[in-house]
Amino acid sequence: MSTDTGLLSPGWAATPGAEPLSDEAWVLAMLDVEVALARAQAELGVLPAGAAETIATAARTAHLDLAALVAGVHATANPVVGLVPQFTKVVAELDPAAAEYVHRGGTSQDVLDSATMLICSRTLAWLRDDLQRTATALALLVTEHRDTPMVGRTLTQHAVPTTFGLKAAGWLHLVLDACDRLDWLLDNGLPASLGGAAGTLSAYAEYAAIAGRATDERGAELIAPFAAQLGLTAPLVPWHAIRTPIADLASVLAFTATALGKFAADVQVLTRTEIGELVEPPAAGRGSSSAMPQKRNPVLATMITTTARQVPPYTLVLLQAVAAEDERSAGGWHAEWQPLRECLRLVLGAAGNAAELAEGLEVRPAAMLDNLRRTGGAVVSERISAVLTPLLGKQKAKQLLAEATATGQPLADVLADTAPQLPVDDLLDPLRYTGAAGPLADRVLARYHGTAP
Amino acid sequence: MSTDTGLLSPGWAATPGAEPLSDEAWVLAMLDVEVALARAQAELGVLPAGAAETIATAARTAHLDLAALVAGVHATANPVVGLVPQFTKVVAELDPAAAEYVHRGGTSQDVLDSATMLICSRTLAWLRDDLQRTATALALLVTEHRDTPMVGRTLTQHAVPTTFGLKAAGWLHLVLDACDRLDWLLDNGLPASLGGAAGTLSAYAEYAAIAGRATDERGAELIAPFAAQLGLTAPLVPWHAIRTPIADLASVLAFTATALGKFAADVQVLTRTEIGELVEPPAAGRGSSSAMPQKRNPVLATMITTTARQVPPYTLVLLQAVAAEDERSAGGWHAEWQPLRECLRLVLGAAGNAAELAEGLEVRPAAMLDNLRRTGGAVVSERISAVLTPLLGKQKAKQLLAEATATGQPLADVLADTAPQLPVDDLLDPLRYTGAAGPLADRVLARYHGTAP
Amino acid sequence: MSTDTGLLSPGWAATPGAEPLSDEAWVLAMLDVEVALARAQAELGVLPAGAAETIATAARTAHLDLAALVAGVHATANPVVGLVPQFTKVVAELDPAAAEYVHRGGTSQDVLDSATMLICSRTLAWLRDDLQRTATALALLVTEHRDTPMVGRTLTQHAVPTTFGLKAAGWLHLVLDACDRLDWLLDNGLPASLGGAAGTLSAYAEYAAIAGRATDERGAELIAPFAAQLGLTAPLVPWHAIRTPIADLASVLAFTATALGKFAADVQVLTRTEIGELVEPPAAGRGSSSAMPQKRNPVLATMITTTARQVPPYTLVLLQAVAAEDERSAGGWHAEWQPLRECLRLVLGAAGNAAELAEGLEVRPAAMLDNLRRTGGAVVSERISAVLTPLLGKQKAKQLLAEATATGQPLADVLADTAPQLPVDDLLDPLRYTGAAGPLADRVLARYHGTAP
Amino acid sequence: MSTDTGLLSPGWAATPGAEPLSDEAWVLAMLDVEVALARAQAELGVLPAGAAETIATAARTAHLDLAALVAGVHATANPVVGLVPQFTKVVAELDPAAAEYVHRGGTSQDVLDSATMLICSRTLAWLRDDLQRTATALALLVTEHRDTPMVGRTLTQHAVPTTFGLKAAGWLHLVLDACDRLDWLLDNGLPASLGGAAGTLSAYAEYAAIAGRATDERGAELIAPFAAQLGLTAPLVPWHAIRTPIADLASVLAFTATALGKFAADVQVLTRTEIGELVEPPAAGRGSSSAMPQKRNPVLATMITTTARQVPPYTLVLLQAVAAEDERSAGGWHAEWQPLRECLRLVLGAAGNAAELAEGLEVRPAAMLDNLRRTGGAVVSERISAVLTPLLGKQKAKQLLAEATATGQPLADVLADTAPQLPVDDLLDPLRYTGAAGPLADRVLARYHGTAP
Repeated sequence: MSTDTGLLSPGWAATPGAEPLSDEAWVLAMLDVEVALARAQAELGVLPAGAAETIATAARTAHLDLAALVAGVHATANPVVGLVPQFTKVVAELDPAAAEYVHRGGTSQDVLDSATMLICSRTLAWLRDDLQRTATALALLVTEHRDTPMVGRTLTQHAVPTTFGLKAAGWLHLVLDACDRLDWLLDNGLPASLGGAAGTLSAYAEYAAIAGRATDERGAELIAPFAAQLGLTAPLVPWHAIRTPIADLASVLAFTATALGKFAADVQVLTRTEIGELVEPPAAGRGSSSAMPQKRNPVLATMITTTARQVPPYTLVLLQAVAAEDERSAGGWHAEWQPLRECLRLVLGAAGNAAELAEGLEVRPAAMLDNLRRTGGAVVSERISAVLTPLLGKQKAKQLLAEATATGQPLADVLADTAPQLPVDDLLDPLRYTGAAGPLADRVLARYHGTAP
Repeated sequence: MSTDTGLLSPGWAATPGAEPLSDEAWVLAMLDVEVALARAQAELGVLPAGAAETIATAARTAHLDLAALVAGVHATANPVVGLVPQFTKVVAELDPAAAEYVHRGGTSQDVLDSATMLICSRTLAWLRDDLQRTATALALLVTEHRDTPMVGRTLTQHAVPTTFGLKAAGWLHLVLDACDRLDWLLDNGLPASLGGAAGTLSAYAEYAAIAGRATDERGAELIAPFAAQLGLTAPLVPWHAIRTPIADLASVLAFTATALGKFAADVQVLTRTEIGELVEPPAAGRGSSSAMPQKRNPVLATMITTTARQVPPYTLVLLQAVAAEDERSAGGWHAEWQPLRECLRLVLGAAGNAAELAEGLEVRPAAMLDNLRRTGGAVVSERISAVLTPLLGKQKAKQLLAEATATGQPLADVLADTAPQLPVDDLLDPLRYTGAAGPLADRVLARYHGTAP
Repeated sequence: MSTDTGLLSPGWAATPGAEPLSDEAWVLAMLDVEVALARAQAELGVLPAGAAETIATAARTAHLDLAALVAGVHATANPVVGLVPQFTKVVAELDPAAAEYVHRGGTSQDVLDSATMLICSRTLAWLRDDLQRTATALALLVTEHRDTPMVGRTLTQHAVPTTFGLKAAGWLHLVLDACDRLDWLLDNGLPASLGGAAGTLSAYAEYAAIAGRATDERGAELIAPFAAQLGLTAPLVPWHAIRTPIADLASVLAFTATALGKFAADVQVLTRTEIGELVEPPAAGRGSSSAMPQKRNPVLATMITTTARQVPPYTLVLLQAVAAEDERSAGGWHAEWQPLRECLRLVLGAAGNAAELAEGLEVRPAAMLDNLRRTGGAVVSERISAVLTPLLGKQKAKQLLAEATATGQPLADVLADTAPQLPVDDLLDPLRYTGAAGPLADRVLARYHGTAP
Repeated sequence: MSTDTGLLSPGWAATPGAEPLSDEAWVLAMLDVEVALARAQAELGVLPAGAAETIATAARTAHLDLAALVAGVHATANPVVGLVPQFTKVVAELDPAAAEYVHRGGTSQDVLDSATMLICSRTLAWLRDDLQRTATALALLVTEHRDTPMVGRTLTQHAVPTTFGLKAAGWLHLVLDACDRLDWLLDNGLPASLGGAAGTLSAYAEYAAIAGRATDERGAELIAPFAAQLGLTAPLVPWHAIRTPIADLASVLAFTATALGKFAADVQVLTRTEIGELVEPPAAGRGSSSAMPQKRNPVLATMITTTARQVPPYTLVLLQAVAAEDERSAGGWHAEWQPLRECLRLVLGAAGNAAELAEGLEVRPAAMLDNLRRTGGAVVSERISAVLTPLLGKQKAKQLLAEATATGQPLADVLADTAPQLPVDDLLDPLRYTGAAGPLADRVLARYHGTAP
């Protein structure tokens, strides 16, 4: 058996979120689904309540043979066909009569899709918490550094001054956007999956009829109680080949990964040795190098970056599976499982790492100031251009500044020559040219605090 | 100059949606943005109202040199740096004084991003209409074929009976899901983009100050009137490097493409010569082959499929650009423009094609019935399994049916031998084993009609 | 600890190729690299031969703590920083003096990249074998069915006759193409990785100098003996940030996955219930359904399809890592590891499944013949068009056939009316219109047998 | 008609390579294919030589209606069905008899695939030249800066010294790798496409038979002369659904894009204002900003980066089309055309931009030296660790240096305290710790000059 525990996955290795996404977790979730099915059928009188409870007892105590289940995946292309007889045997040991009711009318996809949604439901709550933790820490940074000046960089070059508060507000804004999209997903509801062999719920209806419980809904009446048992949403119709729930997960996970990736990308730039405006939080062993004792690598940002690089391509597999043929597809569905798990693991890991990064980020205002002053007045040349334009005309002002830049003439001299009446020192002070950085940071803080208009 | 007009793009060639996404359309939209900027500044008293109107007049009459603009893209990596002087010259011909106010305080990204959102706003309304047209046509199919039996297929094999009504209801459900996601996007609002050189709006503030109109918002006060001029939403903060609006577009377009792709995938299966349950709408020349006179290729489905294949990979470029470094990125932003346009063109084309396909789809109930009866009773073996299980026990029932299948023994004989008391003909009739297909189709129709609970 | 053993990966679950790609395998390979480094340095006299052999002994017996290694991945973003002290401790237990020489001058990337190449080298040989097995089985099918007629399908519709021999020859051709690309990769050589902290091999040179073994190559002299110890190719220069070897793997794996995917896609079409020209090889439990006793799902083709769907997006992560910044990248490299492993696992699994599928594929010539005759003469309308064209002119012939098709007039009648002199029965016999199918199949067989010109 | 001329494509706008990839170029190439088909058939005596020459004359003078062709794409999902009658009319105007022979036996895919390969053949030669130009310029940089010291950066942090010569050698190595892969592709040969309706060449054979020129090859004899007419390689078998040639193009283009992307990524880092070790070549208007007169944006690197970001996802569409169903696929093939063109345009554009960048790159050795000295001795701490290890033992040496780093103690003091016998100044001089950088750069130069062993 080939075991994979994260050795090659710095994005999620040894993060707490990886555990509820293990093979074992999936097996338990599939058993939860079998229990929910039996209980929902019992609720409708289709099978004896006692049998359902025996099934529930068996699920709590079952120790299924994982290697055999994996071998079953190779034989039948899904983990449920092999799970049912294994589990039936466990139930039969408690009560052979109850065993007759295991997986009654059930189909593989109902069990696996519902189990997956159950796991998503559990892990996305966790993700929500870690995004909130990140947001809280970023909001503190925004508040503290609302007016800490730094250089704004565009196309890698110094452009005009900004503040670290606005920079961090951008990160916060993205994290809040990720939260909103996750809430939208959760508010739409993660649906249980129940459709039977080909989405008509026919066998569920047949067993109900045999038990004398046929309804006008002809099987569809089982959807709601089944979903309720799992704490999931009841879908309007079976979604074996209507993969919106998976596509929505894909979109939200891809966005969250890249939104955190923006934060990490900026941290990687600002921790560069020459820039030195930020340092990752120190921790024992964290970021050490096997060869160079002096190095402190920005490993949290690096690990988040691996997630931002991997998740969007993985979600492609999920999106492409929406264009599934037939009532259940031959390969599209099967290709979803592992990349979805991997995306969940990676995004959960990234959110935890982002929270740690935001909470412990070391900000160096002095380095920010040094960098801001590094180009002399060039960083406010936009301002000089603006003040000269009404005096000289757009064209002439531009030309004058272009010549000054080309010849290296200080902007103070240009101003003194051209417009001696203007307050040169004031105009050339980068700290006085941060525009709306403060008010904009306030807007994001108001959004965070729920007080935005 | 290299011209591309759709010759290699069957997904959108000669569809009406391609025109408002041409280079010329983008140039006009960028001029709309320059006008909106001037008018918004005039509204705040930062520049003379007359100048703004002269700029507006010039934009209406300007015939810019597209080849020169494209050459400018090569020189500066964006189309705005070259557009501004060209357009300024046009304004200057009307009034040299007004020309001084063109693009005042503006930055390339403000103009291009806002122009892009303007175009999205126009074309997404169109997309919404074509999705609605598709939904309407599909709802008719669902209604008409609520009870038309056909075989349900899973992993390419006959599974159990279903109805064409439920099949079409699945397509309708996906189209409605696409509509909902599009509405969510539009309800969130497509934001204008205004940030200035590095997202602090500093030059806008400076020009306001020069005009004696400084505010506490230090430039941010311009966002709302600018957006209002464009009929776009005012963003909370500049989004040069906070690419949520692009990521949301990516998600919605990718989903819409693949949702329509599901419809096309099923049509491709069901129009297969051996299956013949559906035929694409006939039209002069449509689907003809250059070599085989008898062929009617499912070209609408094929063209939709090209969209479902291309859009998700293209949206990856958009998603990956979210993890942008700095205040404006060096390449991520620039890589967005063309794939976003291509996705819009493709999805608009696909929606039009889907509407045409849904409206004219030829349904062949007789072929559906033939196929449903093709395997004898095997298509209801799930039902026979269900009725035998309580009589024989799960294990024995399964074994009996497996043997019958292996030896080719008719299920009628199995039933007659095992459970002569049962109504064999009734049980073996596939038309009586469509489960909840009818009620489920009704649920989707209720959703379409807005009457779902 | 989160364990993943294939439960959600039908593409590779329980396939033999998955085991040599486990976490444990990677740990062993990393130890192999540490041994090779020590031995190569011993060879150059940089460290004592006895120490190198002690290190080798320790590697054979070491049982490292995998969970601790995974925890180390979280702390340092790679598995080597934690492995070195664990392994050093094992060596120290044998001989504290030898422990001083572990990982001397080494850097994480040298160890991990070399270990990865070692594992690739082992598993790609396996892949080569399974592709060869597949080719052999397909060549048998081509030979046996060289002249078995079947319908050729284009855009899902019956087009003109072909043979199953040519169809299988296409699959064989693709598998041979995959073999050729794999051979090209292996002939180029999988390179060991040795560069030291930033690709200059400086620490290796320094330790050599301390040992009195400085050379003009200043460290580069270690590359060749190190690679030789591992049975890998010596790279011209370190490739920490020159990721051609990974990109080449990506290309070959993506192609192999999709080449096998073509075989699977065709099998999925031809095993459709209505078509029934192929049946997957029967095996106990293989392809059974949990709900429908009659079903035999094409699970081998389905499992291959999951690979064809997943691998190309995963290889994107590898390709995008080529555009790495700096001497070693912060995230690009780290994002490679898991998708590369996953691609290897999936492609190995698919090749094994393809061999099994090709070896046991059940071909049904009678069904092929039935389908070929299903449209009456329409399947040879191209031929009728060809024979009428010289008689009537291109335009008139086309029109005549279009009308016949539209009105359902049999082609025999058309011919009898128009060109009574022609041998109608012969012309309408699909078995006599297979064109070059036979000679083309022979060409591919000749390629397989190495006798192509 | 929607026109796209590069306004949103900074990767290729106004580059010379875009023109031979226009719609018009494709129309001309399709006509070239029709001519080649007629001439090859004439060569075999299947049609009159005079007719073939009339067809050739018509192709030279034809001005087809592009808008009508694009409308035809919408009707039939490909550009050939509409091209044939348009072109036939042109021929008929010259000679109605010759018009009968246009596209004789031909199929859309033969024409379009062959036209595409013809265009690839022309544009890839161009690409080869621009890669060679880039390599030449980089080789000059390597030679000139073989010993120019600079800091090596890993995970964004200063690691150990290296040289700019080795850095540029890495870029050169990748460009040579791209050349090798392109040569491999071209040496394999770009194949003409000839298969007829479903890959059996049946209609070609039929027309040959009618002309009394039937052969044992039954149509396959036409492949070689047809390919020869086009200057393309004769494929072993038709490749309508054996898409290796497209997959190979995809791999080579994706690699070339990302290989150039590595060069661009490094330039973007090294031109950062704080780092300032490189400056992009100046040119009139190049890289100017609409708002900030002082800025010189690294636009060449930015435009190359857009290519590196777009091409890999686009090639995915090509790779996924390999898993095509049937004799010709319904959507996979059609989805290839535009992304292939876009990849060619982008990669050609990037190669031209890379050549310009390499030829004009301004290198600033003084800035490199400043940065190298910025961290005091920390940049050689690896060396100090190496020299102390034999004296103190690995563990103690590491600990000592960690403490020095933590407390900020200068390494000179550490050395003076611990090992006063060592030549401190020498050991701490970063210029004396560049390891094998020089010899490694020489290796790559030897490869470039063809003198590598």
